[in-house]
Formats: sequence, structure tokens, C-alpha cells
Amino acid sequence: MGNVIYLDHAGTTGVSEEVLKLMLPYFSEKFGNASSVHTVGQEAKFALDNAREMVASCLNSRVGDVIFTSGGTESDNAALIGAAMALKETGNHIITSAVEHHAVLHACQYLENMGFQITYLPVDDAGKIDLSQLSKAITGQTVLVSLMYANNEIGTINPIAEISELVKKRASEFQRTIVMHCDAVQAAGFLTLDTKALGVDMLSLSGHKFYGPKGTGILYLRRGTPFLPILFGGSQERERRPGTENVAGAVGLSEALNIADSSRVQTSNHCMLLRNTLIKEITEKIPGSVLNGSLENRLANNVNFSFEGVQGESILLGLDMAEISASSGSACSSGSLEPSHVLLALGQSSELARGSLRMTLGKFNTESEIEYVLEVLPKLVQELRGLPTLSSSGI
Amino acid sequence: MGNVIYLDHAGTTGVSEEVLKLMLPYFSEKFGNASSVHTVGQEAKFALDNAREMVASCLNSRVGDVIFTSGGTESDNAALIGAAMALKETGNHIITSAVEHHAVLHACQYLENMGFQITYLPVDDAGKIDLSQLSKAITGQTVLVSLMYANNEIGTINPIAEISELVKKRASEFQRTIVMHCDAVQAAGFLTLDTKALGVDMLSLSGHKFYGPKGTGILYLRRGTPFLPILFGGSQERERRPGTENVAGAVGLSEALNIADSSRVQTSNHCMLLRNTLIKEITEKIPGSVLNGSLENRLANNVNFSFEGVQGESILLGLDMAEISASSGSACSSGSLEPSHVLLALGQSSELARGSLRMTLGKFNTESEIEYVLEVLPKLVQELRGLPTLSSSGI
Repeated sequence: MGNVIYLDHAGTTGVSEEVLKLMLPYFSEKFGNASSVHTVGQEAKFALDNAREMVASCLNSRVGDVIFTSGGTESDNAALIGAAMALKETGNHIITSAVEHHAVLHACQYLENMGFQITYLPVDDAGKIDLSQLSKAITGQTVLVSLMYANNEIGTINPIAEISELVKKRASEFQRTIVMHCDAVQAAGFLTLDTKALGVDMLSLSGHKFYGPKGTGILYLRRGTPFLPILFGGSQERERRPGTENVAGAVGLSEALNIADSSRVQTSNHCMLLRNTLIKEITEKIPGSVLNGSLENRLANNVNFSFEGVQGESILLGLDMAEISASSGSACSSGSLEPSHVLLALGQSSELARGSLRMTLGKFNTESEIEYVLEVLPKLVQELRGLPTLSSSGI
Repeated sequence: MGNVIYLDHAGTTGVSEEVLKLMLPYFSEKFGNASSVHTVGQEAKFALDNAREMVASCLNSRVGDVIFTSGGTESDNAALIGAAMALKETGNHIITSAVEHHAVLHACQYLENMGFQITYLPVDDAGKIDLSQLSKAITGQTVLVSLMYANNEIGTINPIAEISELVKKRASEFQRTIVMHCDAVQAAGFLTLDTKALGVDMLSLSGHKFYGPKGTGILYLRRGTPFLPILFGGSQERERRPGTENVAGAVGLSEALNIADSSRVQTSNHCMLLRNTLIKEITEKIPGSVLNGSLENRLANNVNFSFEGVQGESILLGLDMAEISASSGSACSSGSLEPSHVLLALGQSSELARGSLRMTLGKFNTESEIEYVLEVLPKLVQELRGLPTLSSSGI
């Protein structure tokens, strides 16, 4: 990393040193298969059980409701496909929003091919869904509502507790089971993950978004929620997710979640100060800058601007040369020159959507780093606008 | 681990120290998201590309044919479901064997529910399938043949190159596409993984079976093989497997595979010596011991015996108390008191199948460890047979 100023925490974070230290024994030393009956296996199982208890404590859930997965994508896929397929005899309608992560949207497309009908709720220009629209969208065929906690590109926060309550109310009116899933991948470390308070049936998390290891995830699955596994094999994870348990991964994920969750007020306050400085100064210093998303209802670490007449990619490359790592949207869709589906859903033009810059803060960012960014960025945008080939909107 | 004699290498292995050392920088230091365009991301992508090249070199395959997954189970699932669903308009028949891993068998059950017909080839008392039976089983509806390289419980080796050729010949007779998949999870480090020589279209590997990390796997997918992904989200792995890439895992997996593959003759010879001693001495010293599987056509590190009148679980616990880690079958089904589906397929009685003991050797096992095992085991079996409550066959 050297002196790089890392402002892409929504893309990924590094495993914190204290977490890595706790993981290390489970690679080479206590390497047992947690499903083996011998002592070496049981030592691994003990660590896995502890990890699960720690996650359950962060989620205020039953220990048995915690399923370890290979990441946020698998968790989202398992939630949507697992619940929809389990309920397909009772209805074929699913509700989500136009600004979800592709792990949700593409799982919905798959389910559409399997005969489900999907309602993609629109959002307003701040990325908010309309609860009365959600209420109206729920029908006697609805089996599943999947809405994200906080948007990965623009940080807009959904009122999940309120949404869950509404879904329950409508389910009770229709006298049917409607599963409520929440993709909370971006929320961990910033918002409460208390599943009882949130009222969700399913919730997805990804380890590497909160200083845990990549290749690890959580699917919270409230006991009694209709669910069919999407992977088939051994009887691990109470027959809900087969495959030899990634013990080192589970240990790292659980410790990272525990740290992120217990320090979330502190981290949020720290990031929010830096975020507010960035938003204020960019708005003032860079003409033609448009803040994407809401100012109030926003994840503490998210900054996302569009700049008129500039390509996002050009800004990124310029920042990278100045040793600042940022993003033009989600990492999953980078490399593609398609404008962000999230920004288009806000009603932004393709042209403006292509000029977007996401900066997502983390607990190690400092004020002086932000000062440096605020020196570099306005000059860079000005320079780029001055270049005839890059300031034109066509590709 | 202390002084434990670990004889459960088919269950899992520890990450070798040299592999862990190479993985370490990718947790906290070079932690980038390999899909990010900035320098931190590209550093991760560079490591991922190198890992993929190293795997491709071990598999004698194109770099683009290597897909990183979360493990053997996901690889097997993706192979079977991915090929079957891609070909479902052309036929609905799949061939596998009765002794496959549950990751294959349970994926087949899922496909059966999706309208496919599955032929489960029987095996002889040594665990071998009959190639003429395979040939006859292939019909004008067959889309997929999935057969394991070496059995995880009894080590019986299938002649994959010969099988692939037969499948190709029959496919050409029927003028249709029949995908050949091989679950090679147990073979890595002992048998060649040259995909050209093997003639397979798909091949599954699991990192933790050859001193690599848990939660990592490979799906080899020959270019042009019909395939639909089973997970949905970002465009990682050339749109065949979404989710943020587990860079540290891929680095560890590739290094471990490289070591395992390049030292496989040496490791095989080492294990085979110990294996032959175990088989010879157990047969001689323990009356009523039955070697499961073939003597000749057997994985170099596999020992599997049934003992008349003794429960496998009791032997395991006794060995564990003597600090010897072994298994009664696959780790994935341990805990269950069901007799092994593999041993039942060999024609063994439920009673005898419940008395099985699997010992799987690794590169660090020594002659003196095996001597110790040969002191402990015969006494233990004799003692258990003397106990009235445990020597009876009923549960």
C-alpha cells in the first residue's frame, strides 16, 4: 500500500492485523475438518462454534440461525433463490428495488426465468423507495421482499425495521408467508445488525467489507423461514450449506464483525466528519458537481458525486496517479463502461452517470488525507474538463 | 496438534507453512479488490492472474479455463448443474456412479427434481465401474457423464482417460454433445491432473485436500463446454462465478497445487510404502478384517478396512484416545450413524459397513507413526470385540 490514500472501503477492506492474528492458528496448526469426530476435528468445530456464537451475538439471533457462506453474493443468492423456491407453490411474485446489488438483481433475473414475476420498485432522485408503493406492490402472490439496508454506490439507507413491519402487516392481511430479506453487506460496521429490531427473516453479510477475510459471508436465516439450499452435498451448516467449513475464515469473519459492530458508533462518527468535509468542500470547490444520493439519509462513509463533462474513469486514473484509490461505482461492475444502474435509476442522464466518483471512507482514514484529496480533486476535474478529447461526452 | 498421528488426509490437510507465507501479504497488505481499476486493485488482480496461470500450468489447460470457486462442493455443483441446465433442451439423461461424493450425488438428486433422469452405475466389490455398462448406459438423451477420479472412502481409481474417450466415441455415434466431468478432489497430489491427457471437459478440485486453504476450489471448464453459472451477480471469473475474488485463497490454492502436483510421484511413493505396510500388517494381525476397495487400483494414501463385529465409531474413539486421528468414511457424513453408501454399493452388509475404518496418509507421516498405529489398532479391535455392549451389531 505504501502511502496510498485508500478511499474504496465499500469495494473492499484489508483484514485487520488483530483479526489475522486470530485466524492464523487455523491454517496450519489447528487445521482439522470441523465435521471429523476426532480431536483434531473437534478442535476446529469448537472454533467454528465460537465463531457462530459471536456472529449470533452481533445479530442478536439464535446461534442456529447463522449460516457461514463463501461471501455476500452467495448469501444473497441463497436468500432469494432459497426462499423463492421453497415458497413457489404458494405464489410467484417477488419485490425488490431497481438499485439493488447485482447479486440480488441477477438472482431475480434467474428467478424470472424460473417463472417468477419481479417488481423492481423505483426510487426517487435520492435513491429512496416509497413505502406506500411497496405496500401496494404486495399481492396475494408475493412470496419474498428483498431490499438492501444501504446502497453500495450512493449510501442511501432504507428504513428496514419499518419495511419489515409493513411486509408483516401485509402478509397478515393476505394471510400468507412473505419472507423479508435484507442485503446488509454495506451496512455492517455502520448500522445496527440487530435482526430482532430489524424484523428481517434473512440478512446477508460479506466478511471483506468490514476488515474480515474475502471468501467469507453470513446468511442469517430466522428459524422457521421457508428455505431450500442452493448448493448440494454434505450435511454441514445443519444441511443448509454443504462443503467443508472454512474455519479460519469463520474465525476471521466473526472477530471482524464483532470489532466492527462494537465500534460502529465511533467509526461512524469518525467517517461522517471526513465525509461531511468532502461533501461540503467538493460542492463548493468544483462547479458542476452533483451529490448522488441523499445528504441526510446516507451511510456515514459514503461520498458519491457526478461531475458534468468528465468521465468517471478519467477521474479515477488521475486520482490513482496521485496515489488516491477511489471508485466510479461498484467494483463488481468496474471495467465496464456502462453507466451505473443505480445512478440511472435516480433519473440521472447517461452522460452525467458516467462522470461519477465514489469515495468510501474507513476507520483508518485521516483528516490530512482528506485535505490532500481536496487539493488534488478540484484541479484534476478542471484539467480533465480542459482536455478536448476527454471533456466530450461521447465514448 | 502436539503428538497426534494424523491419518485423515482425505478429510482435510493443513496449509503448509510455505503456502501460508505466500498467502499472508494478501490479507492485510495487498488487500485490494481484484475488480477495482486503481493500483491497489490491480496489485490484487496481478496476484490472481498469476495464481490462475499456475493452476492452468498444473492442469495443462488454457488460463481462461480455470475458475476459482469456494471449494470442491461448489465446483461439483457448478459442473453438474451448470452443464445439465445448459444442455437441457438437447436431452435429460445424466450418468454417474453409486459411489460418488455427496456433492455429486445430491446435485444429481436436485437435477432429478428438475426433470433429469439419472443412471447410477453400479460398482463391483472393489469399487470399479464396468466400462461396457457405461457405454450401454449412454443414450441419445445423455447430456453429462460425471465420474470421480479416485474414491474418497476406498481410494479406487477410475481410468478417466479411457472413460473420456469412450464418452467421446459414443457422443460422436449419437452426434451429440455429452459433457464429461471428473470429480478429482481426492486425486490431486497423487495422480496426473493433465486435462488434455484425461480428455475431460470439466474437473473439480478442492484446495484443502492438498495442503491449501479451506474455502477454495477449482472448476476446470474446457473452452466451449456448455455451461450456465449457478451463482448470479458480478462479472468476475469471466461471468462464470460472481463474487469478490478471494485473492489470498487463490494464491494459497495455486501454490499448494503446484507443490502437490510437482512432488506427486515422490509423495505417492512415500505414502504407498506406509499404506502397503498398514494393509499387510492389519490383514495379518487382525482376524476378521476386510480390505475395502482394490489392492492394485488404489490411491497411494488410502487404507480402508471393515472389522467384523466392531463399530467404526468405537474404533475411531479408541484411536483418538491413543492420539491417532482416523475416520470411518467421509468427514461430510460423519456424525451420522448411517452405514457408508460407498461400502453398501460394494455389496457389503450394513453390519460390516458400520465397522469400517479409513486411514489416509500424507506426506508428513512417518514409518514410526505407522509402527505405533500397528501396535495400537490390533489390541483395540480385540478389546472392543471383548466388550459385549459394543461388539453387538445393533445400534
